[in-house]
Amino acid sequence: MLVTHLADVRYLTGFTGSNAALLVKGTRIVFFTDGRYTTQAKQEVDEAEIVTVIDKPVAVAACERAVAQGIGSCGFDAASMTVGGLEVLRAVLPAKLRKKFFVPVMGLIAGLREVKDEIEQEKMRAAAALGCWLFEQVLEHVVPGATEMEIALGLEYMARSAGAEKMSFEAIIAGGERSALPHGHATTAKIPKRGFVTLDFGVLLDGYCSDMTRTVHMGAARRGSKGEPGEFEVYEAVLAAQEAGVAAVRAGVTCAEVDEATRGVLTEAGLAEYFTHSTGHGVGLEIHEAPRLAKKVGNNPSPKLKAGMIVTIEPGVYLPGRFGIRIEDMVLVTDEGCEVLTPSPKVWMEL
Amino acid sequence: MLVTHLADVRYLTGFTGSNAALLVKGTRIVFFTDGRYTTQAKQEVDEAEIVTVIDKPVAVAACERAVAQGIGSCGFDAASMTVGGLEVLRAVLPAKLRKKFFVPVMGLIAGLREVKDEIEQEKMRAAAALGCWLFEQVLEHVVPGATEMEIALGLEYMARSAGAEKMSFEAIIAGGERSALPHGHATTAKIPKRGFVTLDFGVLLDGYCSDMTRTVHMGAARRGSKGEPGEFEVYEAVLAAQEAGVAAVRAGVTCAEVDEATRGVLTEAGLAEYFTHSTGHGVGLEIHEAPRLAKKVGNNPSPKLKAGMIVTIEPGVYLPGRFGIRIEDMVLVTDEGCEVLTPSPKVWMEL
Repeated sequence: MLVTHLADVRYLTGFTGSNAALLVKGTRIVFFTDGRYTTQAKQEVDEAEIVTVIDKPVAVAACERAVAQGIGSCGFDAASMTVGGLEVLRAVLPAKLRKKFFVPVMGLIAGLREVKDEIEQEKMRAAAALGCWLFEQVLEHVVPGATEMEIALGLEYMARSAGAEKMSFEAIIAGGERSALPHGHATTAKIPKRGFVTLDFGVLLDGYCSDMTRTVHMGAARRGSKGEPGEFEVYEAVLAAQEAGVAAVRAGVTCAEVDEATRGVLTEAGLAEYFTHSTGHGVGLEIHEAPRLAKKVGNNPSPKLKAGMIVTIEPGVYLPGRFGIRIEDMVLVTDEGCEVLTPSPKVWMEL
Repeated sequence: MLVTHLADVRYLTGFTGSNAALLVKGTRIVFFTDGRYTTQAKQEVDEAEIVTVIDKPVAVAACERAVAQGIGSCGFDAASMTVGGLEVLRAVLPAKLRKKFFVPVMGLIAGLREVKDEIEQEKMRAAAALGCWLFEQVLEHVVPGATEMEIALGLEYMARSAGAEKMSFEAIIAGGERSALPHGHATTAKIPKRGFVTLDFGVLLDGYCSDMTRTVHMGAARRGSKGEPGEFEVYEAVLAAQEAGVAAVRAGVTCAEVDEATRGVLTEAGLAEYFTHSTGHGVGLEIHEAPRLAKKVGNNPSPKLKAGMIVTIEPGVYLPGRFGIRIEDMVLVTDEGCEVLTPSPKVWMEL
């Protein structure tokens, strides 16, 4: 099999650079990179033959090697290989091999990566714990008049000073009406004197991602009016939905069942139409991994959770022009239920 | 045409979120995003019909719309569409359309993006100028004993405080022997009392990337020995190569000719084998764009530079276990030559 997706390369070899391909046959790995990474590859990659490629894409070199070794067919990751990239590789093949050489494989290594072994679980516990520590620290920066970007920057400064390689994604700090933008990145907008602030962030620690969201409130909650629900009521509904999601997690349960658990609570509260995304996703070397905790689509069976998976549970409600609330934990699936890796407080918090 | 690559979506519509697809027919654009981005899309996207997609990928919704409108064939970007992604889209089509509906297009919008219009040039001048200001500021942090990561973090703090959305890529700060790793990201390694420090970084300002590299020296240069060239001699060779590259840039010149200009100087200096990457690349909304300034490969003609392109010129020499040097400018191609957007000093600098 030809492996070109970098997170898969890192999973299989430990290589952290930005250009590499693997040719994997049984337990034997040939590792291809370019001249920028020869020295780094020798430091990071064990148990593979390391080849430095000059003047051509690393995947082309891997293909040429496969052909030279008389290999007759080769799997590739259809989820990451582009149509154009595959054409470039096909052009390398002798004419007689072109039609049948490449065999699309969907998510084989992504599938291996879903279930985390004990070493990975330890790394992710550490990443999640750093996230929780950061949440505690960042609260003193969340004051009226501070800009979202100052808060995001302070968060990153603390994270990297504490040993994180970087943030696992650009932190979302969204105050006031902007909290209704589920993925509004931090801007120069100021934290209001009264209203919600959503903080959604994670770190990359020793290669593994953390991910958590808390929504806090500046000042006292606004009551509802004219049939619009009040801030506290909506918060309590989102929290109940999130807790129902966490409670539904257990090895053997389907992803759709967990999604139904969160969505069901919001449906009862009359808020389901404002929960405009899925309940969660796997986390690991990448911030978004399989499985996806979403509604069942069409006739495809919803995947079942397995012990060792690490997923997020993150329902949210977004009322355009008013406010938004999202609460997110990272949990480790077990046979009995789950271990919450991000035990920061979730109760209504007034700053 | 179906547009799914996010930088292309931003180029065509101004949308800055992380999930969208466009269906473009003539001058008419239908914009698809998910519920997280409905509000943001209404703020950012003009002159397009905005569709919020629920429970399916945005590209699937775009396909269904194309079919419903009776469109018989549709281009897609083969350079970004994955093999698996295309299969998912094909499954949406009526059986009779499946074979011929999708037409692979290589780099059509990437090609449009190569030449920057005046508004884009202004934005990139501003991004490059911020990079130069940062280089000046960061020098006082480059002191023996400081960790590479502290310097990278300080750089990012200053960049974001000065208005950058973020760094355009993870800053490379590599001291001493680590300067021989062309893409060594910042680690907890300390800046040595004597030796090179490579600083390669850029900012994202108003959507556009800057990119520049300078290599400074802590203390006095080490002389060569036993046939090994001294630090100052290698620096002068890299600088001469870089200046030859900049001098070679002009509309109508091929990318391979610019690469030959830098490589030629290093060949004469007996250092070509240590210049293990290409001479440069386009920059714009993304940090790496077309064209690539590299050797001619096979029989494909090397692309010609056009006025309005913005490219990097960044030769480097990496002596494993000893040291590395890279010098990089961002230049705007003109009919007469080029405008250097990163005029920070390049002369030998001892700190």
